[in-house]
Order: sequence, then structure tokens, then C-alpha cells
Amino acid sequence: MIKVAIMGFGTVGSGVYEIIRNNEAGLERKSGHKIDIKYILDIRDFDDHAEKHLFTKNFDDILNDDEVKVVIEVMGGLNPAYDFSKKALLAGKSVITSNKELVATHGTELLKIAEEKNCNYLFEASVGGGIPILRPLNQCMAANNVEAVYGILNGTTNYILTKMFKEGAAFSEALAQAQELGYAERNPEADVEGHDACRKIAILASLASGKFVDYKNVATEGITGITKNDVAFASKINSVIKLVGYAKFDCDGKVYARVCPMVISKEHQMSDVSDVFNAVMVHGDFVDDVMFYGRGAGKLPTASAVVADVVDAVKHLGRRVMIKWEEPDKNIMLDPMEIPTKYMVRTTNPMLVNGFIGASMIGNGKGENGTEYAFITGLVTEKQLKEKLGAADSFIRMLPEA
Amino acid sequence: MIKVAIMGFGTVGSGVYEIIRNNEAGLERKSGHKIDIKYILDIRDFDDHAEKHLFTKNFDDILNDDEVKVVIEVMGGLNPAYDFSKKALLAGKSVITSNKELVATHGTELLKIAEEKNCNYLFEASVGGGIPILRPLNQCMAANNVEAVYGILNGTTNYILTKMFKEGAAFSEALAQAQELGYAERNPEADVEGHDACRKIAILASLASGKFVDYKNVATEGITGITKNDVAFASKINSVIKLVGYAKFDCDGKVYARVCPMVISKEHQMSDVSDVFNAVMVHGDFVDDVMFYGRGAGKLPTASAVVADVVDAVKHLGRRVMIKWEEPDKNIMLDPMEIPTKYMVRTTNPMLVNGFIGASMIGNGKGENGTEYAFITGLVTEKQLKEKLGAADSFIRMLPEA
Repeated sequence: MIKVAIMGFGTVGSGVYEIIRNNEAGLERKSGHKIDIKYILDIRDFDDHAEKHLFTKNFDDILNDDEVKVVIEVMGGLNPAYDFSKKALLAGKSVITSNKELVATHGTELLKIAEEKNCNYLFEASVGGGIPILRPLNQCMAANNVEAVYGILNGTTNYILTKMFKEGAAFSEALAQAQELGYAERNPEADVEGHDACRKIAILASLASGKFVDYKNVATEGITGITKNDVAFASKINSVIKLVGYAKFDCDGKVYARVCPMVISKEHQMSDVSDVFNAVMVHGDFVDDVMFYGRGAGKLPTASAVVADVVDAVKHLGRRVMIKWEEPDKNIMLDPMEIPTKYMVRTTNPMLVNGFIGASMIGNGKGENGTEYAFITGLVTEKQLKEKLGAADSFIRMLPEA
Repeated sequence: MIKVAIMGFGTVGSGVYEIIRNNEAGLERKSGHKIDIKYILDIRDFDDHAEKHLFTKNFDDILNDDEVKVVIEVMGGLNPAYDFSKKALLAGKSVITSNKELVATHGTELLKIAEEKNCNYLFEASVGGGIPILRPLNQCMAANNVEAVYGILNGTTNYILTKMFKEGAAFSEALAQAQELGYAERNPEADVEGHDACRKIAILASLASGKFVDYKNVATEGITGITKNDVAFASKINSVIKLVGYAKFDCDGKVYARVCPMVISKEHQMSDVSDVFNAVMVHGDFVDDVMFYGRGAGKLPTASAVVADVVDAVKHLGRRVMIKWEEPDKNIMLDPMEIPTKYMVRTTNPMLVNGFIGASMIGNGKGENGTEYAFITGLVTEKQLKEKLGAADSFIRMLPEA
């Protein structure tokens, strides 16, 4: 019998509770041990809960109980989640988390402590919700050099962009609908400005490269500036626009990473990932493209990824699961301004296209400030691009070809 | 230093050789050991090979060499692959394979021997080529009851069907093109009649249910009967036709499994899996739908899955990787004739539609024997369906809704 503690009884925490309680025999068969919940930590009162005796407001109850071998941190936020996770690991308890903010910020240190204490820090649920991605990525990497990892990592923005393409909605209308359905927060900034996707691509890039990619160094743009004309122009070239978290690795171990909207051809498998679904594409030198697709959020999908980690931690008590990265000893980030790429440019000045070698016109349409024109540039760096654009011109990057 | 042997130096075997030789440092970092090839078994001569001293025609060289801890069986076929794999496992050597025929036929016995001898029998490459699917399926299953697993498991037929839909090619024309490009064998029966997909869905179903699903009990139909009119009718209802390996599990542990062409709505993520790509969909009770996509065949993708298993076996020397199933103690197969499903029926008799409750007409088109009509039935069993159809009428199943 292995005792676990759940820290945080919100959406994911209560999902984890449900799955563990409703699936006892299955979890025992799969982990080799009966798994039992000994504590649930939450600052709120749950006096009406059927197992109210499990609840505590005191983290020390969990920390000081040697019987608790696995701690499930689903509180979210940096504090006190960081402090609690660190103390639990230092006490030799394995910690499972869905907290991308914490993993992206303090993952390097927490992974190191886990290694030193011969326990595990696992965070499958922090990226891609219920989609198994971190361990398959590790598995791909066993025989491949992963050359790129990228994907649709945020369900809220994907829902909004799907609405804009399928129903011709404006960004503000689609956002309002997403908020009504509970897919977007009242304050949607973390999603629509790309901050959520930024944490996730930083975690993926860190794992794929083995070196910590600090999310603070990942250039990040959201989708708030995308207009109906952008949608129309992308549709004209049989493409969609998706918020993409992107990381590419060169042979010197340098990383090009960014989060931004990208124009993706309908021929690309990722273009059909709609609504709140997520997808992660891994490009390996031998395996070519592999894609993992599923629900990137939601109570039970996310909780099921957390519980899969719990099972893994229980199977590996006293042994290490090889999921790790290290602090790089030099700057590994490439300057994103210097990477040549193609852009879809929207402008009121149709002559602008002549300034770009290999550019091709898409067409024109009525915009807010008169007729707008769109074209695809050839390969240019962002620095070169911005030198040529006027203040009113806008651009969206094309998804780089593999 | 861990010594391994490669049995079979064909397409996959030479790919495995390449990856191990070109990626030594990476494999050492990932497995914790230097991995070296001590033998390559093949009945053919390779006197011009740079490492011709590695080649042997005598399996006993490998079997009797205690230094060889991992044997890579990429010979294909049942014999002598079965005999060699069994002897290697009995000697306590881990065996890695891409041989779906062998796994689907003797997997239960070989897994049992591996368990008794505390070594591993791993076969990630036997399904989905380079796509990590067997371990992610295990991972999904850790917290979910897998209710269904299905997919596009054969690249050759998917290439042919893609051609038929995108270019309006007839089956025979598309097959000829596939043969020209090397995507289909001169004798294409194993692919186009569904035998290859049948082995793969049997392996997936066995893993997902934990009970051996014998491929001989999986009703299997190929794609040779699909006509241009079938393609036209499916297109009219915004759908495609794919060869699907399908397995669904009921709560009593019974399995409904079959391989057949299915009509799939363009709304379904799997409809966009084109050309030689494969995709496996897993439906879990908590995680909902998860899909794994990538190259299902090819030298380096498949070899990279084999090498990932080698790394795993080396990491787990003397320990078990939990991938297994058992012989069921009773018949677990549901009678596929008794499962209600929907069908797209093609007939020269337009009145036939009236015999089906909830049926809806698609339209008509010129066929080989005059005007043909197509309609979708309501839910009926195959037994009920066949009672109503004439000898010249044909049908394709609709992909069941989740």
C-alpha cells in the first residue's frame, strides 16, 4: 500500500481524487501496489466532502509523514507550490505536477534535487493535458536527434482561431464565445497573449535538448492582432492560422524558439487540429515527423495524465525515471530576429511586395483603413522585414518547412 | 559496454546498424551504456561490408555468447525467427523485434518466457513503424480504461486510397502507382487484403485489453472491391474511405475487432492522414481521444523504433519493462456479425433504402452495371444487412462514433 497526498483540490485535484478512488483495482494492477490517498491539502473548507477527514491546511502533515511516498502538486502558481515541492523532494518523496509555470521556472532545480534524493519529479500533465507527450518524446529521442518540436499547445486560442476560420467571427466575438463556454478565463491574457504556450514550449524544448530553455527567453506574441482579413487572406492560400509554440535545434545545440501565430497550409497535418484540441509535432532525424494529438486541457484528461505519472512513480519507487535537463553552461538561444523565415504581410501599400525577392501576391480585401493587400515574402530575417514595413503594416509568420 | 546482435540484415536490419553506428555517443548518454554490435546474422554473404567480420550464418554464435545481452530480430517471417527468439529469451537475453507476424502469433508465449527469465521482449516497431504507440498506449492505460483502439495501420493501402480520393484513380491504377514507387509489393495481397493491418490491430488489442487477441479471430476485409463510385459517394457526404483496424472493448472484457474499409467523415481527425502515413487513435474513459501519427513504415523510421527499444532494454537489464498480455481463459471475442453499425450501401436498386429504418439517400452515379445508388443505413447488424441486400449490392461500414 502506497500512500499519496494531493495538494490543491481545484479542478485537476478533484479529478485526480476521482480517478484514484474509482479505479483502485486498475491502478493496483498497473503499478503493482494499492494506491491510497492519505491527505488532501487545501486552504478552503470541504466539510461536506464524503472524506472530509483527509483534508488538511497544514503542509507539514504531509511533509513529516514518512508513509507518504508520492506528493501530487496540482495547486498551480509558483507559491507556495515551489516551496512545498522542493521540501517534499528534499524529503525523498516523489512529486507529480501539472504546474507548467513551476516546471518552466524551477524545473532545473527540482529535477536536480529529485536526482540527488533518488526520487522522481514528473510533469507529463504540464504539457498537452491528457496527451502522452513527454515520455514519447523521450522515447523518440532515444534513437533520434530531435531537430524540431512544435505544436498547438493552447486550447483556448485554438478554439478562438477555429471560430474565426469556420464562422468568420472577429477575434473579440470568438473570445466572448470562448469565455461564455468556459474555455477562456475572464482575464484571458495568459492564453491569448501566448504566455501559457510559452511555458509549454520551453518545457518541451528543455526536454528535447537536454538543456534548460528559459521561457523568459522565448519571444512570445499572441493572437489579439489577427483580423478578419488575415483569416480571409490565409484562406485564399488554402491555409489556416494557429498559435504555435516552436523550437528548432541546430547541430551546435543552439535553440531557436518562439511562440506566435503562424500560417499553416491545409496540407499540413496540424492544420486540422480544431477547437480545444492540442497537437505536438516532433521531427527526428530518423523517424521524420511524428504527431501526438488529443485534449490539451480539461479536468479528467489532465487528471488522467497526473495519475499515469503517479503510477509510474509508484512503479519506480527508489529508482529514477530518466526525464531530465540541465542548466546550460553558455547561452544556447539563437537570436530570433536573425532567423530567416517567410511572412504573410498585410498592408495598404500594394507596391511593398516589390521589395521582397521571391514574394508572391495573395490578393486584396476591404479592411478597416481601406483596401488591404496581402503577399508572402521570400526568406528574410525579422530585422530585414521590419526595415521595409511601415507602421501600419502587419505580418504573420509562415510555419517553417521541416 | 553492452553487446548486441542483429538477426537479419535486410532493410530494417541495415537501418538499425546505421543508427547504432552513427549515434554511439547519443545512445550511450540515453541508455547509460556504450552499445556495440558483436554479430550480424544473415544467410547471405556481405563480403564487401566494411565490418564483414561481424557477419555470421550460425545462430549458435549468438546464442552461446554470454556477452550478448540483447538480440535484435528483424528477419521477418515465423521461421526461424520464432525458434531463434525463443532460444535467446530462454538464455535470458532480451529480444527486440519489428516482426508483427511473430508477435501476433507467438507473442503470448514469448512474453511469458521473458517474464520467467527476467528479461524483456519488446516490439514497438511491430505496429506503426516509427510512431511511439505501444508504450504511450500503456501509459494512457495506466489511468484510463481503454475503451477502443483503432487506426490506419497500413501505409500501402492508405497511399492507394489517398490516390483514389485525390486523383480519382481506380483501385488498379493506384495500386500500379504504389508498386512503381516501391510502396506496394509485387504481390500486394498482405497489404491490400488487410492481413498486415490485422496482425497490427491484434497486437494493439492484446496490449490494450491485457488478453491475447488472436489475429485469426479478427474478421478481415481488404480494399480491392472499392470502386470509383464508392469514392464519389463518400465524397458527396464529405467523407473519405480508409482501411481501419478497429478494436472496441466492453465492460465484461469482451472484444469487438475487425479490419475493413470504413467511411470516415472529414470532420474526424483521422480522415486527414494521407499517403503512407499511419495513425492510431486511443479512446480512454478519462482522456477521451488521443491520436498518434507518423510514418508507419520505412527503413529509418522503423529502425529508430527498434533502437529505442534497444535503449530501453539496455536501461532495464535485469529488470522488467511492463509490456504484456495473457492467454484468456475463455473466448473474449464478440461475434462481429451481431454488432450493430451503420453502412454505406451501393446498389442498382433505389427502393432498397426503404427497408432500413433511419436510412438516408446519398445520390446516384453511373456504375459498371448502369446507374448505382448509395445510401446510409441506420444501425443494423451485418446479419440483418445481408438478409436485405442482393448479390450485386455492396457495402462499406461507417466508422462507429466514439
